[in-house]
Amino acid sequence: MLNIDWKPQRNSSTALYRQIVDYIKEKIGNGEWTVGTRLPVQRELAKIFEVNRSTVIEALDELKADGLIEGRGKKGTVIINNTWSLMASTPAGNWEHYIKNGIQQPNLPTIQIINKLEYSDNIIRLGTGELSPELFPEEMMKNVFSTISNKIKSLGYERPKGLLYLREIISQHIKKFHINASPSSILIVSGSLQALQLISMSILKPGSTVLVEKPSYIKSLHVFESWGTKLKGISMDKDGVKLNEILKNLDNTTSLLYTIPTFNNPTGTIMSQDRRDDLLNLCTRERLPIIEDDAYRELWMEEIPPDTLKSRDKNGIVLYMNTLSKSLAPGMRIGWVIGPEAVIERLGDVKMQTDYGASSISQYAAAEWIKSGLYEAYLKKLRRKLKLRRDITIKILEKYFSDIALWNIPKGSFYIWMRLNSKINMTKLFYRCCKNGILINPGYMYDFNTNYNIRISYSYASIQDLQFGLKKLSDIIRNSHFDLE
Amino acid sequence: MLNIDWKPQRNSSTALYRQIVDYIKEKIGNGEWTVGTRLPVQRELAKIFEVNRSTVIEALDELKADGLIEGRGKKGTVIINNTWSLMASTPAGNWEHYIKNGIQQPNLPTIQIINKLEYSDNIIRLGTGELSPELFPEEMMKNVFSTISNKIKSLGYERPKGLLYLREIISQHIKKFHINASPSSILIVSGSLQALQLISMSILKPGSTVLVEKPSYIKSLHVFESWGTKLKGISMDKDGVKLNEILKNLDNTTSLLYTIPTFNNPTGTIMSQDRRDDLLNLCTRERLPIIEDDAYRELWMEEIPPDTLKSRDKNGIVLYMNTLSKSLAPGMRIGWVIGPEAVIERLGDVKMQTDYGASSISQYAAAEWIKSGLYEAYLKKLRRKLKLRRDITIKILEKYFSDIALWNIPKGSFYIWMRLNSKINMTKLFYRCCKNGILINPGYMYDFNTNYNIRISYSYASIQDLQFGLKKLSDIIRNSHFDLE
Ligand SMILES: Cc1ncc(COP(=O)(O)O)c(C=O)c1O
Ligand SMILES: Cc1ncc(COP(=O)(O)O)c(C=O)c1O
Repeated sequence: MLNIDWKPQRNSSTALYRQIVDYIKEKIGNGEWTVGTRLPVQRELAKIFEVNRSTVIEALDELKADGLIEGRGKKGTVIINNTWSLMASTPAGNWEHYIKNGIQQPNLPTIQIINKLEYSDNIIRLGTGELSPELFPEEMMKNVFSTISNKIKSLGYERPKGLLYLREIISQHIKKFHINASPSSILIVSGSLQALQLISMSILKPGSTVLVEKPSYIKSLHVFESWGTKLKGISMDKDGVKLNEILKNLDNTTSLLYTIPTFNNPTGTIMSQDRRDDLLNLCTRERLPIIEDDAYRELWMEEIPPDTLKSRDKNGIVLYMNTLSKSLAPGMRIGWVIGPEAVIERLGDVKMQTDYGASSISQYAAAEWIKSGLYEAYLKKLRRKLKLRRDITIKILEKYFSDIALWNIPKGSFYIWMRLNSKINMTKLFYRCCKNGILINPGYMYDFNTNYNIRISYSYASIQDLQFGLKKLSDIIRNSHFDLE
Repeated sequence: MLNIDWKPQRNSSTALYRQIVDYIKEKIGNGEWTVGTRLPVQRELAKIFEVNRSTVIEALDELKADGLIEGRGKKGTVIINNTWSLMASTPAGNWEHYIKNGIQQPNLPTIQIINKLEYSDNIIRLGTGELSPELFPEEMMKNVFSTISNKIKSLGYERPKGLLYLREIISQHIKKFHINASPSSILIVSGSLQALQLISMSILKPGSTVLVEKPSYIKSLHVFESWGTKLKGISMDKDGVKLNEILKNLDNTTSLLYTIPTFNNPTGTIMSQDRRDDLLNLCTRERLPIIEDDAYRELWMEEIPPDTLKSRDKNGIVLYMNTLSKSLAPGMRIGWVIGPEAVIERLGDVKMQTDYGASSISQYAAAEWIKSGLYEAYLKKLRRKLKLRRDITIKILEKYFSDIALWNIPKGSFYIWMRLNSKINMTKLFYRCCKNGILINPGYMYDFNTNYNIRISYSYASIQDLQFGLKKLSDIIRNSHFDLE
């Protein structure tokens, strides 16, 4: 779909339709819109350009007369030529079939829409998995910038595993979680999503199976599947992933277990200490390596969560990943992976072939945040603020949803996993919400089975928006009850 | 290979051998060194730990007695157990076969060695493709940090195509190169290597062929090949890639032409304006899309290079990529791709699945560098300094190599492509140099055929190191003449 962010100028001496013709000709002339590109339908164009439909028709007629576009009835208007190819024999630059090639699958449509709509001005984001800009520690970040601006003497290509200075600091930092790892067993990544990419590119055999919690964050991504790896969902109870279910699903294609033991995304489940120990025993016995995704650990509210799996892993079967995205700022794009040195070496070698490493500026900033103690100080305050937001959001839910949904009260992280009482069409609900200026993360992004859940995030929207948006969501569900079934 | 950066302490009250035992036990106990890991040979260990070989033997004997390691004669010592698995039935955490799996191939051994040795203290880097830390604009960078620290109000996940503010600035900036592209046709990437990864993951069909110049930077990478795409080398003359060779090599598996028309890496060749126009005509006619890698454009010395291919591409057949790595700082990890909007959308969607975008801090910094005019001011000075370095390096070559090699005089960028007169074993030469504290980039990394070239870079090492290192290189070549044949 074309992304048109331009409008003709009303106070210009050039007629509106002429401005539109010129704009489209420029796009075609620059090769930005290639032969085969489909224009939005007339009604849509009129809306985008904020003009009457007749103005759009006038413009399109001229472009047709020039031989640049062709109307194909209901299918809309297509670019069939360009100024240059009118002279040449056949149109070139038809990328259509290229876009359909390639190993990496496109994102799910729902996610593509979310990725785009998140940046419209008038949308209320009820599902966004990040901290609100309101919570951003602006002053502390200024401090960090000022320190690193004196520290950075050059910014060359970095070592395969990342800035040694940062790895040394992380090696100290993780002692807090009872993890012992030297800098050479730590890989710096551009966020933990990249860690998952590297793992799937580097050490997973196409055709193998990854066991994941049901529901799980990973379900919303193609990160493993694009590489020919299959996902198998394992159910959970209140203590975490079910061990007998793991055993039942193990076969000789099984390559890994991916788990978020601390504040599972989306359910908020915390794996109990006993379950952790039993899981480690089982996986050690079955030689099933584990990826422990610990992205939300720091975001507890009442009490420190049980120990990391990694801290009790004496056999190097756990690949541990963490990130600053959830606790500090996703825009830093800094995460780390800890594991057996040989695995870390392999991942580092592949990282060098992927992007030559993470931004050194971000790496210096991350190092400074942790080393200075600012990170700890900030986290303390953040926990209080998140708790407040959670409590307010629960109040709002009690007011508007108590008769139409059920939910848990999370002990940390960002999410409330809310289940609607009635079986409505969740895809339709998603689109209906979009139209009404509300962005939700429907449960089907996370689960393997049909479900009637919504992941509500209390970390992102302002309290006012949460208030307004959740009431609206409740209204939409109530009013559309029948035609959404 | 294990990476040991630890040494026992001489002034400690604990015996040296005991310190070594404890160190190795800790590594095994933490799961950093897993079962199956091979230790360096005794001689090597003695060197690393800076102790006598007898001390090493003493330590290994104790570890053997504990059942943790096993000597396998010439094959060295292998970890066969760990404290924990001694109690369990069978050793877990054997990642060996995982490391061999995965789609992405490991880097060439030469490159893996270069990637590591680049960070040893006592090595002279004669081939490194980046600017010397001496040339880093420290004061300007401080300015930029101070500006962005006031500008950054939050650092959330960014849009699929990257920070809009940066794309707007780049859209203006590239007018200087006569390229017209709106922000929606620009994708921000974490360096141009990532752009190549995204292209291979997103739009290339496994089994297709990419045409590349012979020699070419891309030859040293597995970036296309890991995705099942084959490379085919096309020869060049002094005006650039040969068009009749392209025609000869076209078949229905051909998917793209990858070219570095301005200062080819490694040869420095500049494609002439006529060749550019003819190439565009040919590729338009044959519907062969082009990737134009313009990484070195800003680094001209005497005169501005011919226009970019993209600026004359009226059909959207060119995907243009650029980066700040060569002209400013690789550690920023900022590059951009410009192309038809539909292709950019697809690449952006895949980028979102790969790492959720480039570091926002780096993106703000890049925006500020360009917008403030600091970048232009800095480039002006940089060109003069690079020219000086080139001239000095040519003088050094004249002194030490005139009877044993031939070379070109580059008009920009970093590299001199030097051909040795005699046919020696280049792999052996590479290792010989490493042993002597000199890192070179041998021609076989870039070419498809056997060759006797070395890529000398005058941008990185200090003048003093260039002087010393090149003399040494010349000595090595002369002295080892016979046994390197
Ligand atoms: C469990 C989990 N892991 C990883 C990520 C991605 O984090 P990053 O920004 O570090 O790639 C997320 C983000 O939603 C997440 O929920
Ligand atoms: C021609 C060319 N393109 C791209 C790159 C990689 O640049 P980046 O650091 O932007 O990934 C290099 C680096 O050597 C290069 O020589």
